[in-house]
Amino acid sequence: MYNFDYHIPTKIFFGEGQIVKLPAEIKAVAGKVLLVYGGGSIKRNGIYDTLMPLLKEAGLEVFELSGVEPNPRVTTVARGAQMCKEHGIEAVLAVGGGSTIDCTKVIAAASFYDGDPWDLVIRKAPVTNALPVFTVLTASATGSEMNAGAVISNIETNDKLGLSHPAMLPRASVLDPTYTYTTNKHQTAAGTADIMSHTLENYFSKADDFYLLDGMAEAMLKTCIKYGPMALKEPENYEARANLMWTSSLAINGSVRWGKADAWSVHSMEHQLSAYYDITHGDGLAILTPAWMHHILSEATLDRFVKYGVNVWGIDPALDKWEIAERSILMTQDYFVNRLGIPATLREVGIGEEHLQIMAEKASTPALQKDVYVPLFPEDVLAIYKRCLG
Amino acid sequence: MYNFDYHIPTKIFFGEGQIVKLPAEIKAVAGKVLLVYGGGSIKRNGIYDTLMPLLKEAGLEVFELSGVEPNPRVTTVARGAQMCKEHGIEAVLAVGGGSTIDCTKVIAAASFYDGDPWDLVIRKAPVTNALPVFTVLTASATGSEMNAGAVISNIETNDKLGLSHPAMLPRASVLDPTYTYTTNKHQTAAGTADIMSHTLENYFSKADDFYLLDGMAEAMLKTCIKYGPMALKEPENYEARANLMWTSSLAINGSVRWGKADAWSVHSMEHQLSAYYDITHGDGLAILTPAWMHHILSEATLDRFVKYGVNVWGIDPALDKWEIAERSILMTQDYFVNRLGIPATLREVGIGEEHLQIMAEKASTPALQKDVYVPLFPEDVLAIYKRCLG
Repeated sequence: MYNFDYHIPTKIFFGEGQIVKLPAEIKAVAGKVLLVYGGGSIKRNGIYDTLMPLLKEAGLEVFELSGVEPNPRVTTVARGAQMCKEHGIEAVLAVGGGSTIDCTKVIAAASFYDGDPWDLVIRKAPVTNALPVFTVLTASATGSEMNAGAVISNIETNDKLGLSHPAMLPRASVLDPTYTYTTNKHQTAAGTADIMSHTLENYFSKADDFYLLDGMAEAMLKTCIKYGPMALKEPENYEARANLMWTSSLAINGSVRWGKADAWSVHSMEHQLSAYYDITHGDGLAILTPAWMHHILSEATLDRFVKYGVNVWGIDPALDKWEIAERSILMTQDYFVNRLGIPATLREVGIGEEHLQIMAEKASTPALQKDVYVPLFPEDVLAIYKRCLG
Repeated sequence: MYNFDYHIPTKIFFGEGQIVKLPAEIKAVAGKVLLVYGGGSIKRNGIYDTLMPLLKEAGLEVFELSGVEPNPRVTTVARGAQMCKEHGIEAVLAVGGGSTIDCTKVIAAASFYDGDPWDLVIRKAPVTNALPVFTVLTASATGSEMNAGAVISNIETNDKLGLSHPAMLPRASVLDPTYTYTTNKHQTAAGTADIMSHTLENYFSKADDFYLLDGMAEAMLKTCIKYGPMALKEPENYEARANLMWTSSLAINGSVRWGKADAWSVHSMEHQLSAYYDITHGDGLAILTPAWMHHILSEATLDRFVKYGVNVWGIDPALDKWEIAERSILMTQDYFVNRLGIPATLREVGIGEEHLQIMAEKASTPALQKDVYVPLFPEDVLAIYKRCLG
């Protein structure tokens, strides 16, 4: 295993009704707060009406930015940062899923930068600081509520890129499972696939001697497998929604990541799909993951696939190793397609051959070739994309 | 499951050589630091000689308090607090295992209190603040390096009591697995039993709907089962020491605790043994745990024991439920006694019938009766003690 620094100071208020604790946390560092949200579902499901009086009772002056897109745009970031500068806003509060939270984090950073926020995303300028970030989570998926990363899209350049800075880590996040009762079937399924993909990226990152982390990752995967279909069938099942919600945070806050190598190959490949076609991130991950698994299955990864198959999918350990590995991949795909109801192929989400070559080149960052079980070059990524076409 | 607030801001520097990162963390908040350690093993194993120049290079003025006892005494706390007040010390640094760290935490708190530090332990006076606490861990066991609690003994009154305050949470802790290479066999075994006991206290605390936490706890238990004997056999096995070390922190930092009820029955019973007989905490826990399990095995806990037996010990799920439960308890005891080499009975560690009654009364706090699968009253605790006598 690798040396690691572990630091997750985000305060989490987990459970029904915990939102009442948030305003005091914001008030401790700010008088003016920018409330950021998406398409308005928070007005329909009552969160807005619960939150606003609480913020005002705490003596906070609230500004609002709505309309954050799925795959949030840098243009929206720029609008938010402009508001912060103009009104002397001292903290930002995201109410939504990963897209809203990611957008809000970069607004917080861009408030300290005078140029185009895209400069921060493409590393033309460094993030130096950020306004304090707070979140109220409404969809279990990206884990953005408890990590320092964000992914932003630029429609003009077909780029979807991640950035990360400790100052962007949320100070406090409210995780109320009842707020995900209204998450629709498609987003619930895609969110569950996203959580599983984060866990799988960690699980298939190098370091075979960190048994504890493997076991924790297996617990997270089994939690998704158990509760994803349950949440689809019974949207108001608290147990299902709560287990998924907490798994979404732990799967990507570092708990099962630090101490291992860090390739995150499938995410790199998926970001190209979302950048060129604006598809749902979790759909792209679920389509790519089994094909990626097929591609990397080899002597180098066989034992890991066997561990995965036996411990996560309950496959008989007495079977032949290759049989177990193949079966684990089939069970993964079957789960995504038949139990979560996610499309099986790229064509089903509107993706054809037209941009495969350029996407494969853009996806093949050095991270996919260094310190991994199986390095992926542009031709490998292209083969994986083609396998997914259907 | 229960609502919970999750907040673990401790910074962890994990891995060989990571100690170089610590002095800057201390220097950021203090100029004078009190270095606290135990019997001097840190001078024999080289940690002292590594650390002191680093602290001085960082420009820190270092004061020293050595001789912290296993089951640390309130008299030592008083000495340390006096030094802090006298010299205007601004931070405390524990180098050692749980006893040293616990003592250091209460020194940090007692530095803000003018009376006898025992007042803080017995809640006669509240902890209001604490000097910043830093730690370098040298034994994997109590998890004190990443939580806000401490346990202090008073030899005069035969009391061993815990206290906790957010200000006592370490700001940063160094977890270098090589520092535990010199932990002797007895302490390695007792430490492993301690980690397992923390995990079992959580696992057998109420909340049957937090599947994720159960899975994470099972991963922690299996990690101990796998690596405890390996560390005994090969004291310098990095993989074994590292997995045990990180499990020690996660088992009791809240990760598998928050969201569940919180009885911690075995710890309450063990603290009486240590208070009256000054035995090793982990030995007491390992002796008590199987007897406690026998006592609480009932219709109310059967399914949980089955889960434990199947998932942790690999018992065939096709067997009769009671058979699985009984077998899981036997395997737990067999592991402690035959694989870790811990005494099986109280008499073997010098405990007879003389104080059983008073200890049973003192152990039976309200926590053991409220919101638990099986409440424990003084007569229950007495029965458990007697079962352990041998």
